[in-house]
Amino acid sequence: MPTEYYATGADVRAACRRGQWTGPTPGLALGYVQANLVVLPREWAFDFLLFCHRNPKPCPLLDVTEPGNPEAQLVAAGSDLRTDLPAYRIWRNGELEGETDNILRYWQDDFVAFLIGCSFTFENALLAAGVPVRHIEQGVNVPMYRTNIPCRPAGRFSGPLVVSMRPLLPAVAVKATQICSRFPRAHGAPVHFGDPATIGIRDLNQPDYGDAVTLRPGEVPVFWACGVTPQAALASAQLPIAITHKPGHMFVTDWKDADLEGQ
Amino acid sequence: MPTEYYATGADVRAACRRGQWTGPTPGLALGYVQANLVVLPREWAFDFLLFCHRNPKPCPLLDVTEPGNPEAQLVAAGSDLRTDLPAYRIWRNGELEGETDNILRYWQDDFVAFLIGCSFTFENALLAAGVPVRHIEQGVNVPMYRTNIPCRPAGRFSGPLVVSMRPLLPAVAVKATQICSRFPRAHGAPVHFGDPATIGIRDLNQPDYGDAVTLRPGEVPVFWACGVTPQAALASAQLPIAITHKPGHMFVTDWKDADLEGQ
Repeated sequence: MPTEYYATGADVRAACRRGQWTGPTPGLALGYVQANLVVLPREWAFDFLLFCHRNPKPCPLLDVTEPGNPEAQLVAAGSDLRTDLPAYRIWRNGELEGETDNILRYWQDDFVAFLIGCSFTFENALLAAGVPVRHIEQGVNVPMYRTNIPCRPAGRFSGPLVVSMRPLLPAVAVKATQICSRFPRAHGAPVHFGDPATIGIRDLNQPDYGDAVTLRPGEVPVFWACGVTPQAALASAQLPIAITHKPGHMFVTDWKDADLEGQ
Repeated sequence: MPTEYYATGADVRAACRRGQWTGPTPGLALGYVQANLVVLPREWAFDFLLFCHRNPKPCPLLDVTEPGNPEAQLVAAGSDLRTDLPAYRIWRNGELEGETDNILRYWQDDFVAFLIGCSFTFENALLAAGVPVRHIEQGVNVPMYRTNIPCRPAGRFSGPLVVSMRPLLPAVAVKATQICSRFPRAHGAPVHFGDPATIGIRDLNQPDYGDAVTLRPGEVPVFWACGVTPQAALASAQLPIAITHKPGHMFVTDWKDADLEGQ
């Protein structure tokens, strides 16, 4: 089925639920807010919620479920987080155990799900304003780097801030900052621009996640807090079990990008 | 000691800790962010944190402590939430048991403290911009009302949105909206203006909390989400024990009002 068919978040979720879509979600249901997923037992939920609250730039919370209830009531009424994403990752004791297209057999009565804002929202706004997004131009994944900036720890969760990078001319970086400031729940304004070494990045050509992209003459690297940050914190906390989305295979909500403006 | 002596948040906290200040905090350490306090056992902390996350206008979180640790590390390093407020209220099973000037003898190893933004921050900004604040002019407490707008429930916490009201001329209300929008962590923009009945308020002259104020010709009532909302939710949840500040007797942080801008 052509991806144009998936016009809304509900369309994407239904296709995932029926097993008809197991691929990545960028470009699907354009204009609908996509979200990172983290699922963990209630015993860990307070610490993780606190970690998100203390680190709102990498972990902007969109919705948190009641323990045991797989419905994201706020951002997607009627959804089922066990089936409505195209692909999931299962983590045990901080190690990746495997991937799956639904988590029905993993679900526990004490599971709490966290939906965290995603850079697709601000990238759509950048593109709409004529700001180029290099990794989209080059058809690769955004480059991401672990920095030397520690997140504020919360209980058993800690770890470095992970950032994504987009090269921009300085005047365009200013415009991008203005645009992204309107979306604090999609990582908001950049956290750094210029010298990568300042934030502990040795080599832009060797990202820790994703793919390297080209810097053109006059451009500076601009760095945004990234939704991979909570996954790094999860891994270091070595939970007995945790579930996340597979990178790029997000939960598509009923909210429109415009709903996040100023929130 | 004259209140002018208390120039900073740290000054106010030290005076409270020594037992030298047990009075209300408006006007003390002007320009420093003041905060509502809620303390409850960790067993209830996830639900309450979720309640705040789901209701950010009445419950904008500034800081949440680690279980058992009475220090507000983020907004006031070195503080002790057991002693650094002028007055506290002790609640048992949803009923007010009494007031006290420190909570050392009530403190439990599993207590978690929540600091929630307060309208003083935006009132300072309104006054600085020449917007009149009627209850300050009239030397009374701000009028507050329970509305028919339900908060989004979270676990065992639910209850109505409580609002505060300030009368303004329409053009001034627009200006006030712009100013308050800059402070989402101090209740942000108004939630309603005009007809009180629309949000379930029968009589402006009979506030549920605080004091009535005068509406002058041409003015409309303007309503903001209010920090009393979480106290109403606390009372309805009937916790075995909870502790709050005494109204008007806030925790004064090290943050300046300007630090909250845009956050």
